[in-house]
Amino acid sequence: MDLLWNQYQPALATDLYELTMAASYFAEGKNGTATFSLHIRNYPPNRSYFVAAGLESFLNILNNFRFDKEAIEYLRSLNKFTDDFLDFLSNFRFSGNVRALPEGTIFFTQEPIVEITAPLIEGQLLETIVMNTFHIETLIASKAARCVEAAKGRTLVDFSLRRTHGIDAGIKVARSSYLVGFLGTSNVLAGKLYNIPVFGTMAHSYITSFDREMDAFMAYAKSFPENTVLLLDTYDTLRAAEKAVKVAKYLEQKGYKLKGVRLDSGDLVELSRKVKQILCEHGCDYVAIMASGSLDEYMLEKLINSGAHIDAVGVGTKMGVSADAPYLDMAYKLVEYEGKPILKLSPGKRTWVGRKQVYRNVDSSGQMVKDILTIFGDKQPGQPLLTDVVINGEIVHTPSLTESKKYFEENYEKLPREYRSIHSPSKYPVEISSALRSLEQEVEKTKLIAETGKL
Amino acid sequence: MDLLWNQYQPALATDLYELTMAASYFAEGKNGTATFSLHIRNYPPNRSYFVAAGLESFLNILNNFRFDKEAIEYLRSLNKFTDDFLDFLSNFRFSGNVRALPEGTIFFTQEPIVEITAPLIEGQLLETIVMNTFHIETLIASKAARCVEAAKGRTLVDFSLRRTHGIDAGIKVARSSYLVGFLGTSNVLAGKLYNIPVFGTMAHSYITSFDREMDAFMAYAKSFPENTVLLLDTYDTLRAAEKAVKVAKYLEQKGYKLKGVRLDSGDLVELSRKVKQILCEHGCDYVAIMASGSLDEYMLEKLINSGAHIDAVGVGTKMGVSADAPYLDMAYKLVEYEGKPILKLSPGKRTWVGRKQVYRNVDSSGQMVKDILTIFGDKQPGQPLLTDVVINGEIVHTPSLTESKKYFEENYEKLPREYRSIHSPSKYPVEISSALRSLEQEVEKTKLIAETGKL
Repeated sequence: MDLLWNQYQPALATDLYELTMAASYFAEGKNGTATFSLHIRNYPPNRSYFVAAGLESFLNILNNFRFDKEAIEYLRSLNKFTDDFLDFLSNFRFSGNVRALPEGTIFFTQEPIVEITAPLIEGQLLETIVMNTFHIETLIASKAARCVEAAKGRTLVDFSLRRTHGIDAGIKVARSSYLVGFLGTSNVLAGKLYNIPVFGTMAHSYITSFDREMDAFMAYAKSFPENTVLLLDTYDTLRAAEKAVKVAKYLEQKGYKLKGVRLDSGDLVELSRKVKQILCEHGCDYVAIMASGSLDEYMLEKLINSGAHIDAVGVGTKMGVSADAPYLDMAYKLVEYEGKPILKLSPGKRTWVGRKQVYRNVDSSGQMVKDILTIFGDKQPGQPLLTDVVINGEIVHTPSLTESKKYFEENYEKLPREYRSIHSPSKYPVEISSALRSLEQEVEKTKLIAETGKL
Repeated sequence: MDLLWNQYQPALATDLYELTMAASYFAEGKNGTATFSLHIRNYPPNRSYFVAAGLESFLNILNNFRFDKEAIEYLRSLNKFTDDFLDFLSNFRFSGNVRALPEGTIFFTQEPIVEITAPLIEGQLLETIVMNTFHIETLIASKAARCVEAAKGRTLVDFSLRRTHGIDAGIKVARSSYLVGFLGTSNVLAGKLYNIPVFGTMAHSYITSFDREMDAFMAYAKSFPENTVLLLDTYDTLRAAEKAVKVAKYLEQKGYKLKGVRLDSGDLVELSRKVKQILCEHGCDYVAIMASGSLDEYMLEKLINSGAHIDAVGVGTKMGVSADAPYLDMAYKLVEYEGKPILKLSPGKRTWVGRKQVYRNVDSSGQMVKDILTIFGDKQPGQPLLTDVVINGEIVHTPSLTESKKYFEENYEKLPREYRSIHSPSKYPVEISSALRSLEQEVEKTKLIAETGKL
């Protein structure tokens, strides 16, 4: 894959404070082994699970995390950093370890998505880019999985690029939605970068540029006889459906079949049923009906429950920006330093101390029943979820996107129905082990006495 | 400025249908002069104006909009395009004209942000990237302006990079918020690319990595005596404030001054007032109090109305993803082809036909009273807003970011109070000229007869 990130100077895509903290650590000679842990504190509305995504992007970044000459000169121009520290940065290479949930893993609040164990400065300098990368991809994978659930087997295609937050987001939305079961994307660059199938035929502008709608339909069918999806709602959807039948008959004569029609506005329940009827009356029941236009999991559920006749769906903006929950309460926290568990006590932002592991337990039919969150090394029943992905700075395992897709599918099959609902789903049980609970209490006691003089 | 976009292959950052439509136009020999117009159809909740942004990014893209060898080979691999069309693409250069609102212009629904007049294929191929670019920057400039309004003169800094939708978004958020009055950003890459002031000091991880909070405070003050902002809420905010006083006294002895303290959780009204009291009691009233943590315009207004003592604010996620309105209902429509005005009739998605101009009218005190939207060439009272930025493929005018900042400030001063409110603001009058109204009716009549046989 193209190393897109290379070019974005990932080491500078950071909050300044990562660098000022690093400079202070450097000045203090303080660079012991630290573990940072990334997790999500709370569920957004209507959510009860997340889908881990972002690991491949992150590993690409890690491979290219360098302060080049231009970056160093810019930092020097800020007059904040010593030459010694800037020399140190120019030699920066990540030398630590990374454990992570494989992409496609279903996970829950408090559970680490990734844990980085490395010299303190290295772990600190990665904070912003770790968060930015896992945040957007996990956000969208989790949103898109809800669309797949609501679509009940119908084909979904990502149409969001025009209103994603920038091009980087557009690419990541295409990948994340493909990861959880979308068939492909309209996004050509994402198609190229990730080898994702790309789809697309025509917009309203195509039709309006011709004197008559029928001229546009015929011109397109001649250019792409094997792959024509006619957009019906430019002027009058039902009259356009009748024209589509004529195009279908023309294509039949040429030995082709009209692939589909698309509805992009109006009452999609009523229109899709009437269009289906028109197609069937003329022996064109093979023509697929595609819907698009402000669709998300909520609208899809409503359309399907109302009996809309839809075979495929273009899902755009509302999925691409995760409109009902456009961010996750994700945090990257120092949890261990030089072997000691670390805690902060900030109200509403408490985290579990120490390096951790998650064990997943399933019942006899393979359905998930509970997870156990515990300290690393404390063996619990179930399957451990965090795996080694980087050891001493070397990437040890990178599954392909195809493998990750399959992994998500297997994961999702194990998730019981009550957690899949797109409205107020049940909360999945994540048990905190007694080992973790005791450690947390002990650290809290010590910290409270040290910093506030009281318990 | 670095041509970041160069590297992202902007020509491939497109929906596939732009290319299939272009291929069909090419096959038909259909490439007359077309005008495409970008506008916003509706206001998101609590909005009554937008701030135009994205033009500089778009012009950079336009300068670098090429299908290179790698792009052509990928497109060839899709088996959708003829060799002739691919040859045509490999020679693609934008040759048309662009008229746009200068960055920083306040504008309203239905008003064009940009109009592109070019051979049909050129205008079509730009659709996705035009929308993606103007959408995110206008979205965030409009959101950030609300934060500036709510902050009532307090200093604002963009802290959003960790949860923006990707790095591209992070950079654009930093620029867009700076455009409308933020003092700077934590985003180092944006600082470098756009010459925006960068800010940042320490996170909780810095403090927790030391055995004692006071050790962390002192280490930082030693490393950055001129620029220390101590984070107070790791363990106990008020006790930390007392420690901050000690650090301030230490710095005073060394001939420096503690720059600030930061509150990131808890009851910011109560805590900020108590911290202020502690600072003042010890003669440290010069120390600025900074607030952060889930702040947006709504929370800022509430804090300030409740008497919080805050001098500066770090605004993060909720601004960076425009959380209460994470997308705009923006559309890029063909409005004229070969001199003829173009219309689509899709329900809920109607647009005004033809090339257009917006005239802004102010009262004797310079306050905006109404805009008039009309067809291009129909002179109306007021100041015309859309200006030539590209003529025959050549960029004719690019204001600097500093100039655009100033332009926004001047614009915003002219916007009467009732439109600035962050809750249910009044709707600003945009009058449709009789010339535009007549043209629209005429085109609608013709189209209705042609496509549906009825009026």
